[in-house]
Amino acid sequence: MRSLLFPVSFFILLQVDAQINFSQFVNPFIGTQRMGHTYPGATVPFGMVQLSPDTDTISYEKDGKYNGEVYAYCAGYQYDDPTIVGFSHTHFSGTGHSDLGDFLVMPTTGDLQLNPGVAANPASGYRSAYSHENETAQPAYYKVLLEDDSILAELTATTRVGFHRYTFPETENAHIILDLMHGIYNYGDKNVWTFIRVENDSTVTGFRQTSGWARTRTVYFAMVFSKPFYQYGHKKYDPSVYRGFYRKFDETRNFPEMAGKQIRAYFDFKMTEGEQLLVKFALSSVSTEGAMKNLEAEVPDWDFDRVVKEGQAEWNRELGRVQVETLTPEDKVTFYTALYHTYLSPTVYMDVDGNYRGLDQNIHQAEGFTNYTTFSLWDTYRALHPLFNLVQPGRNADMIKSMLAHYNQSVHPMLPVWSHYANENWCMIGYHAVSVIADAAIKGNDHFDLNDALDACVNTANYGPFDGISWYRDLGYVPEDKNGSSVSKTLEYAYDDWAIAQLAKKAGRDDIYLEFMKRSENYQNVFDPVIGYMRPKLADGSWKTPFDVLSTSGQGFIEGNAWNYSLYVPQNIPQMIDLMGGKKRFSSHLDSLFTMHLADEHFKETEDITRDGIIGCYVHGNEPGHHIPYLYNWTDQPWKTQAEVRHIMRTMYASTPDGLCGNDDCGQMSAWYVFSALGFYPVCPGSDQYAIGSPMVKSAIIQLENGKSLEIRVENQSEDHVLLKEVRFNGEKITGNFLHHEMLTAGGLLTFIMKK
Amino acid sequence: MRSLLFPVSFFILLQVDAQINFSQFVNPFIGTQRMGHTYPGATVPFGMVQLSPDTDTISYEKDGKYNGEVYAYCAGYQYDDPTIVGFSHTHFSGTGHSDLGDFLVMPTTGDLQLNPGVAANPASGYRSAYSHENETAQPAYYKVLLEDDSILAELTATTRVGFHRYTFPETENAHIILDLMHGIYNYGDKNVWTFIRVENDSTVTGFRQTSGWARTRTVYFAMVFSKPFYQYGHKKYDPSVYRGFYRKFDETRNFPEMAGKQIRAYFDFKMTEGEQLLVKFALSSVSTEGAMKNLEAEVPDWDFDRVVKEGQAEWNRELGRVQVETLTPEDKVTFYTALYHTYLSPTVYMDVDGNYRGLDQNIHQAEGFTNYTTFSLWDTYRALHPLFNLVQPGRNADMIKSMLAHYNQSVHPMLPVWSHYANENWCMIGYHAVSVIADAAIKGNDHFDLNDALDACVNTANYGPFDGISWYRDLGYVPEDKNGSSVSKTLEYAYDDWAIAQLAKKAGRDDIYLEFMKRSENYQNVFDPVIGYMRPKLADGSWKTPFDVLSTSGQGFIEGNAWNYSLYVPQNIPQMIDLMGGKKRFSSHLDSLFTMHLADEHFKETEDITRDGIIGCYVHGNEPGHHIPYLYNWTDQPWKTQAEVRHIMRTMYASTPDGLCGNDDCGQMSAWYVFSALGFYPVCPGSDQYAIGSPMVKSAIIQLENGKSLEIRVENQSEDHVLLKEVRFNGEKITGNFLHHEMLTAGGLLTFIMKK
Repeated sequence: MRSLLFPVSFFILLQVDAQINFSQFVNPFIGTQRMGHTYPGATVPFGMVQLSPDTDTISYEKDGKYNGEVYAYCAGYQYDDPTIVGFSHTHFSGTGHSDLGDFLVMPTTGDLQLNPGVAANPASGYRSAYSHENETAQPAYYKVLLEDDSILAELTATTRVGFHRYTFPETENAHIILDLMHGIYNYGDKNVWTFIRVENDSTVTGFRQTSGWARTRTVYFAMVFSKPFYQYGHKKYDPSVYRGFYRKFDETRNFPEMAGKQIRAYFDFKMTEGEQLLVKFALSSVSTEGAMKNLEAEVPDWDFDRVVKEGQAEWNRELGRVQVETLTPEDKVTFYTALYHTYLSPTVYMDVDGNYRGLDQNIHQAEGFTNYTTFSLWDTYRALHPLFNLVQPGRNADMIKSMLAHYNQSVHPMLPVWSHYANENWCMIGYHAVSVIADAAIKGNDHFDLNDALDACVNTANYGPFDGISWYRDLGYVPEDKNGSSVSKTLEYAYDDWAIAQLAKKAGRDDIYLEFMKRSENYQNVFDPVIGYMRPKLADGSWKTPFDVLSTSGQGFIEGNAWNYSLYVPQNIPQMIDLMGGKKRFSSHLDSLFTMHLADEHFKETEDITRDGIIGCYVHGNEPGHHIPYLYNWTDQPWKTQAEVRHIMRTMYASTPDGLCGNDDCGQMSAWYVFSALGFYPVCPGSDQYAIGSPMVKSAIIQLENGKSLEIRVENQSEDHVLLKEVRFNGEKITGNFLHHEMLTAGGLLTFIMKK
Repeated sequence: MRSLLFPVSFFILLQVDAQINFSQFVNPFIGTQRMGHTYPGATVPFGMVQLSPDTDTISYEKDGKYNGEVYAYCAGYQYDDPTIVGFSHTHFSGTGHSDLGDFLVMPTTGDLQLNPGVAANPASGYRSAYSHENETAQPAYYKVLLEDDSILAELTATTRVGFHRYTFPETENAHIILDLMHGIYNYGDKNVWTFIRVENDSTVTGFRQTSGWARTRTVYFAMVFSKPFYQYGHKKYDPSVYRGFYRKFDETRNFPEMAGKQIRAYFDFKMTEGEQLLVKFALSSVSTEGAMKNLEAEVPDWDFDRVVKEGQAEWNRELGRVQVETLTPEDKVTFYTALYHTYLSPTVYMDVDGNYRGLDQNIHQAEGFTNYTTFSLWDTYRALHPLFNLVQPGRNADMIKSMLAHYNQSVHPMLPVWSHYANENWCMIGYHAVSVIADAAIKGNDHFDLNDALDACVNTANYGPFDGISWYRDLGYVPEDKNGSSVSKTLEYAYDDWAIAQLAKKAGRDDIYLEFMKRSENYQNVFDPVIGYMRPKLADGSWKTPFDVLSTSGQGFIEGNAWNYSLYVPQNIPQMIDLMGGKKRFSSHLDSLFTMHLADEHFKETEDITRDGIIGCYVHGNEPGHHIPYLYNWTDQPWKTQAEVRHIMRTMYASTPDGLCGNDDCGQMSAWYVFSALGFYPVCPGSDQYAIGSPMVKSAIIQLENGKSLEIRVENQSEDHVLLKEVRFNGEKITGNFLHHEMLTAGGLLTFIMKK
């Protein structure tokens, strides 16, 4: 038996080795197959630019007609596709809706083709066949051989600049296509207006304005080539007429102002064999002037290799905040790719000078913080932002400042629900920004005015017109006959209200604390003790009848059913267990959940998920259940949590392109993995408590921003040793199934001792 | 016989009486009937806001269907129309193409109607019947009784703010319609995107983005009501879907963020009998924040009457720069309305803080000047800008600075051709900005860097891709088979080149002077000595055959024919007369021009003109002939100029709504009248020379910005005394038929002595 006595040296701060190339453990292809909705392209941590290949944006039939399918292309890339359309500069990571895909650039040679063509016949357009054998994806670097024209494409990026390097064969007819019609679609054509200015023979600026998931969105660009084009032009695909040209210009060729709803431009070069054409492509939400400033500040020269190196060094720094050893090399790839995915969003959303376009469409200055966008809060409040409080507290504080700025610009006013690019898209339910704020505040990461933040939370929670809130306030629940998904909303509002109460307590506002603690009990109003499940209630107080506890369609839930959503009272799990008949009966409920067979009729209603993505009726690919495996900790059978989370880590995650069982959802799926792999999970953000699971790693060192470090050691770790014998912190045995944030961030050694 | 000796007192500077209400002599209805294309609404001199009733924007059949006719509605108002659709905030004055008409506001009561309806049945929509009896138009003030709902509408404006006052009957159902679909059309629907934010219960902001004559144009607004609305909403008329609202909001009612391609909003009030609802409506080209700043700076309170008073005081000051006495009261109205029309554009185009949106769509700061837009230069270089050099030199210098800023933002780069709202619309021909710049420089109004200005002029004149310039540079003329309207272009380029030469001379750049003096002779290349007319030449050097000297269609001219356009060599009239066979033959040509009968087939081709607008083949309603009546001054028969200009003033101008015989063209038609009425005209801008005509006024005092004043006295003036006996300046007889700018601006007394 190993000694439980630790060497003295463990109290010495452990420094992460800055020389380790953590980027080598990242496989950006993970999640690009099936429904992960990740992208393999080049980006830096939280970068504004995500420069990545799009293999398509909507599905086509063989005849090239749109078949109505866009879902697979939320991130623009599907691993099984045989062609690449081009490289666009903005991508969500893991979302279940689509937008962005701005500014597709594609190099070609030979006869000019301005249509992308179809995958079945890449020669039909500017797209190209490619092979995974000739494709490399690393953090901040992507490379692919475009086979149609034998062009080697390499991509890298800084925060605001995409950097392309194309190696051409000898040709008199090299083209760079700039397709402003391209975009990642959800509801058909999103373009509102596009604009291109040829500033000189190697500099082009412009913007793309869309109305899609973000209703009123404009992105500006500045593009600079490493050598002058000798001619250029564009084609317009919309009927808009610019009468000014009548008798004056040939608008289509070498005319430096192009605009329209649907345009594609080209820039022509003559290239010698092996000659490289570099393209710097900067973005801005403010103006083309802002894009140009970003370009000049971030990539002042043409040293592509330096930018790759610096981008990867940045990744190494950020990934190196968590240094793990794993059972297998594949596990290390799974872990670091998960960590990589948690660092892709929210994304920086301001120019180098601090200017950004706000929710009111005015230009704002971020004073004293970095402004972020892409808040997929229904997903990310669960584990991503809590993870940031551990490994990226500074950025998380800035994200909260960004949310408060959003609130200040909001006309409702409300904190963000799901917001991106100066727009609220209102996706999903709840007002979970309050959870993110409360979690940071409770964990001491409160570099914002607590009272201002509290006011923002309270006003958000009281904004009656939003999604049944007025009913919720009046009745204590959202009535299903007035507002759908009513049980999910009631449960999540009640949790959010508890989070507000915690914030109020910290701010010393007892009246608000009491008011919102009372509201946090509203989950009781949708619990039907007769059937033992949460159940939709109508405005008249009666229960919805008939009611199907397994169906996820029209039964009062969203991305869930009564079986799994009834388990959503993170703020008062003991009381939830009591409601459901006590610990024993509750454990049985959990057992059934993980072992039952979900009938096809009910599985089909489950969004975003393949059969591999469920365990019984537990749907890991959708977020409402993410805390569920940890709930055994509140029963007398915590080992079932340990077994289940290891089971999930082993079956729902892998180091391969199909390694995500559902949408990564802006890092939430990955954050679940990172926490779980480290051995604990924030079941109830807004508390300082972590539920203990079963670590996947052999060891870990978390370098904290406070200068301290947390070392995790797992004794007796093996694939078969999934159950815990005991947990110790700084040598002292942990009683119970929980850890606390303050304890961990004080630094020290957390030891998991597995049962052999 | 009156003594020709003057009292000593005439040398004393004459001060315009600031107490005189010059506004009373302005009839804003002049030009609103037929083709004048003026608007009767409220604006201040050169104001950014033109708040005016629109009686329609496109013509409808009785059944409400669009009949394809928009031309009549370039200014939104046709005097003969029986209904008013509402009041929009931007209008061109006198243009022959249409745009603007932004932000239509209309007060109604009773059942909400969001469609404008049709004129034949005003009850079919929110429009209202009205009567001219209940309508008043003054500078900076407009009033009308909207008969359908008995609402008295009053409008006034500051530079950047429209101010509405609506007096309601008692109603529980008062509506203010804000129609963002409304706009003044040219090529069908122009809306690209519109956006409304309800900031609070009485403040609304937003923008309208259009692609029409200006291809990429956005105008922002801020609207504040004098009392809170109790509800509001909007209807969307385009198919764009904002999925965010799914299950979340009723988007149509009381939802404070509205956006779409086609939306109309309403704001509801309860009103007591006679209660007044005031609406302040500010514009900005920068942002809603800018609009709000403009609003707060210019109309900080709710004192409508004060704003009217101050607006009229401003008009009195500006109109009072020229104080005239006339033969009849009607003539005074004609004169002051003409002067009023010359002060409507170019329009101020920047926020109170100096910010404005530039041609590159970036935000620029006007440093040390007021930035203007709306440059209808093919029209206004002729007399409007020369008039400004006399009566508004400070503003003219700022207009030139605005044109140079445009040049600096232009990617071609070119000075404006016809530009408005951060767009070049490329309308008409020539690069006449150079004439405006040269004219100001030559006349000493050169408060800009001469060399920078010269560079801008030279680069503009050398921009090959524009409208045949490369051919013109290579061949010395524009070949008709390569570029239409080739003779007009060649003649105008040659004149513009002469203007550039004058500027070069002043700047001491002899090389450029010589180069452009040579180019200024290019008119000779399109003169066919065999037929004695300017004639289109083909690229191979041969003349176009067949050729019709009377037709205005496809014969190498624009808005003219060989008969009148052959007279366009303002820079070298003696040589032109030589080419055309000497003074005698030239006089005969002029005589024929004014007396011939233009056959119907040729008249029909004449744009924009009614039969009343022509004298023989002289088309006063189109600009290319504006100098022609003055050309007799270069022959031995100057009295024919005197007779003809009086004839034109008497027949082509009147104090009634039909008092303009053609488009006022941003004040050019009116500027012709103002000059002619004062007795002289700038036949060749860029020279300091004025050709003497026959004054219409009895006397005038022009208060110059240099502190001096020019007094004009006309002795023996009467309706019948149209010929001059002699002209004296400061008592000294003028030899010849010309005056000079420097002489006039030194101040003094100019005396016209008419033959009895």
